Amino acid sequence: MDGLNCIGKRAKAAAYSMKLLGQTEKNKGLHKAAECLRERAREILESNYLDVQEAERKGMKASLVDRLRLTDERIHSMAEGLMQIEALEDPTGDILYGKKRPNGLMIGKKRVPLGVVGIIYESRPNVTADAFGLCFKTGNAVILRGGSDAIHSNKKIVQILREALKEEGLPEDAILLIEDTSRDTATKFMGMNEYVDVLIPRGGAGLIQSVVQNSTIPVIETGTGNCHIYIDETADLDMAVKIVVNGKTQRLGVCNACESLVVHQKIGEEAVYAICKALEDKGVEIRGCERTKDIYPSSSLALEEDYGTEYLDAIISVKMVDSIEEAIFHINKYNTGHSEAIVTNNYANARKFLDEIDAAAVYVNASTRFTDGYEFGFGAEMGISTQKLHVRGPMGLEALTTMKYVIEGDGQIR
Amino acid sequence: MDGLNCIGKRAKAAAYSMKLLGQTEKNKGLHKAAECLRERAREILESNYLDVQEAERKGMKASLVDRLRLTDERIHSMAEGLMQIEALEDPTGDILYGKKRPNGLMIGKKRVPLGVVGIIYESRPNVTADAFGLCFKTGNAVILRGGSDAIHSNKKIVQILREALKEEGLPEDAILLIEDTSRDTATKFMGMNEYVDVLIPRGGAGLIQSVVQNSTIPVIETGTGNCHIYIDETADLDMAVKIVVNGKTQRLGVCNACESLVVHQKIGEEAVYAICKALEDKGVEIRGCERTKDIYPSSSLALEEDYGTEYLDAIISVKMVDSIEEAIFHINKYNTGHSEAIVTNNYANARKFLDEIDAAAVYVNASTRFTDGYEFGFGAEMGISTQKLHVRGPMGLEALTTMKYVIEGDGQIR
Repeated sequence: MDGLNCIGKRAKAAAYSMKLLGQTEKNKGLHKAAECLRERAREILESNYLDVQEAERKGMKASLVDRLRLTDERIHSMAEGLMQIEALEDPTGDILYGKKRPNGLMIGKKRVPLGVVGIIYESRPNVTADAFGLCFKTGNAVILRGGSDAIHSNKKIVQILREALKEEGLPEDAILLIEDTSRDTATKFMGMNEYVDVLIPRGGAGLIQSVVQNSTIPVIETGTGNCHIYIDETADLDMAVKIVVNGKTQRLGVCNACESLVVHQKIGEEAVYAICKALEDKGVEIRGCERTKDIYPSSSLALEEDYGTEYLDAIISVKMVDSIEEAIFHINKYNTGHSEAIVTNNYANARKFLDEIDAAAVYVNASTRFTDGYEFGFGAEMGISTQKLHVRGPMGLEALTTMKYVIEGDGQIR
Repeated sequence: MDGLNCIGKRAKAAAYSMKLLGQTEKNKGLHKAAECLRERAREILESNYLDVQEAERKGMKASLVDRLRLTDERIHSMAEGLMQIEALEDPTGDILYGKKRPNGLMIGKKRVPLGVVGIIYESRPNVTADAFGLCFKTGNAVILRGGSDAIHSNKKIVQILREALKEEGLPEDAILLIEDTSRDTATKFMGMNEYVDVLIPRGGAGLIQSVVQNSTIPVIETGTGNCHIYIDETADLDMAVKIVVNGKTQRLGVCNACESLVVHQKIGEEAVYAICKALEDKGVEIRGCERTKDIYPSSSLALEEDYGTEYLDAIISVKMVDSIEEAIFHINKYNTGHSEAIVTNNYANARKFLDEIDAAAVYVNASTRFTDGYEFGFGAEMGISTQKLHVRGPMGLEALTTMKYVIEGDGQIR
């Protein structure tokens, strides 16, 4: 049996043990794992140093090296993350409903773990501990396939987590790492339907598309956010400026940042100027339509492709429209199903926007930056789903569960 | 633009209109569609006759020709099905929960249509009207790709349904048929992620596997059921016989039929004999393990592959075990995640079975035949999901919906 199938089998066996564990036992595991990460921070830093050295030798961009680099503080916050997950309520075992049928059968719908979760990610070693924590809390086994750049860090973190579980008498195979980081192995992993119940890619658009295109295992698509803010003609200008500046600049490289502005022309030239000026004052480059450029000459002309681009940078596209219908059409054409906002004081328009925009999160008079598991009150997050099946928007613990029907009778037949 | 992309665009545009319709309007469409099917039964029968003639000319098996053949009665029950869907409550628009966050943001989770549903099916023309009814009621547009054997029937049924919608001023493109039944077109259809939100294959195991392997669109896997009944040592013998005979013989060719029996040896030779005899009396061929054969000599010896086979026929495999642990291990090894039952009077064993068996529906003291949307009280069914994402078990109207977060604020920023 090759290595990958062996990992699949071990994960499946661990998933079987995991689903029988109570919350108390799982919490003990999470607690010990957090302790061990803190205690053994030195070892993690040493392994991480190998990855960072190699990355710098290969000439990796400084911003990427930064994502790869661990520090005492970062290891501390990985441990902190596990403690936060420990404090959450375990959703598995909940009865979602129960009904008695006319023939006396009792039908219950019970929340249960998914089984084996596969995670394919890039070079952020903190994902290793995060993903483990969320999967473990919900009674799933997890198979991780991280990027080659972080392989030494990932191996060490996984080793520490496994040893922590072992110390508590819990199934170590609840976390397994695919150490072979070749593309070929990744492709094989995406075809392991027999062992893996769901695959979650975490990383850039290229990685996600590759998993969506190649996986035969059900995928939860995450992350791409070409988010819009639409300023309606009745918008309060101060509020609009505040929300747009926050949506665009509070953090540039995140999926819920605003990438495009749509403005009703009736709000007036002064208002358009004020919004553009506020953005430019924050160092944002403006790429506008013809009309935007007329009002705000220091903007450059937006190309068609600008409207479809998730910049993740200090750039914003601006499109002026003559009606809310045109705004909705434009947004539904270019949005990636993540987060879209309207700023308005018109009740009917607010309702229309909420009804007609097709996205995971639709906002009235608030920043798109709130699409986040912590901001939504989930206490944890496994990314933002931009697909419609199973889970949409921020994924908390429930996203890592499924249900089964539990039916009790006394001899019923059809 | 080729035909398939054109169909995708039209469906997407229709889905946009569909989600704005209220239940009253959708019900008018379903009602008119049912009326038109009844009124134009003659036309449908004529088109169906072309398919049946062609099938017979090609030497199709009589049982398959029967599935293809429509009669006045079958058309009537297609129409009846649409009226039943009309009578159900539309689940879209429901608020699943609403929460006020500390910063004053109101976060609501609202049930909404999926958008565009793709259905790939074989030669049963009644699926055409059923799938339309369920999708239409939930505000989705549907693209159908039926088998070539039923193409004349499908074209006529779709034409009638579209004309019915048009008469009511509803979007006809809510139902679209891919008339080109080539394999090549099916493969292209499975890659239309831009237009299609979910793909549901309905048919045999070959069709389903082909869609799972080839689709890049999220798939809901349905239908394969290698269902077991486990007779525990404390089972009531009369109840066991009744449930086994019902599970196996009440209807042979369905996915929730029992295909395999697992028996605790301590129930005794007489009991094993009685169960086998009851099955054989109903014309069922028994393929047993060595121990079964010793007790019931007219059974044949089961091969390893028998335990993994969904017979859909008057055959059953029988395996004797020494413990409930062995039974659970055996069932989890061979089951397809559909429906599994235990017959027992032991409380701890009932609980253990419910907890440890990994399947969509797990039964105590009842027949596996109850896994069905109507028996569960859903009032309609789009097949039985055997996967864990999105929906598991019988799929009612809710399976054809997703949700979106609707967030209302008064200027909140992060």
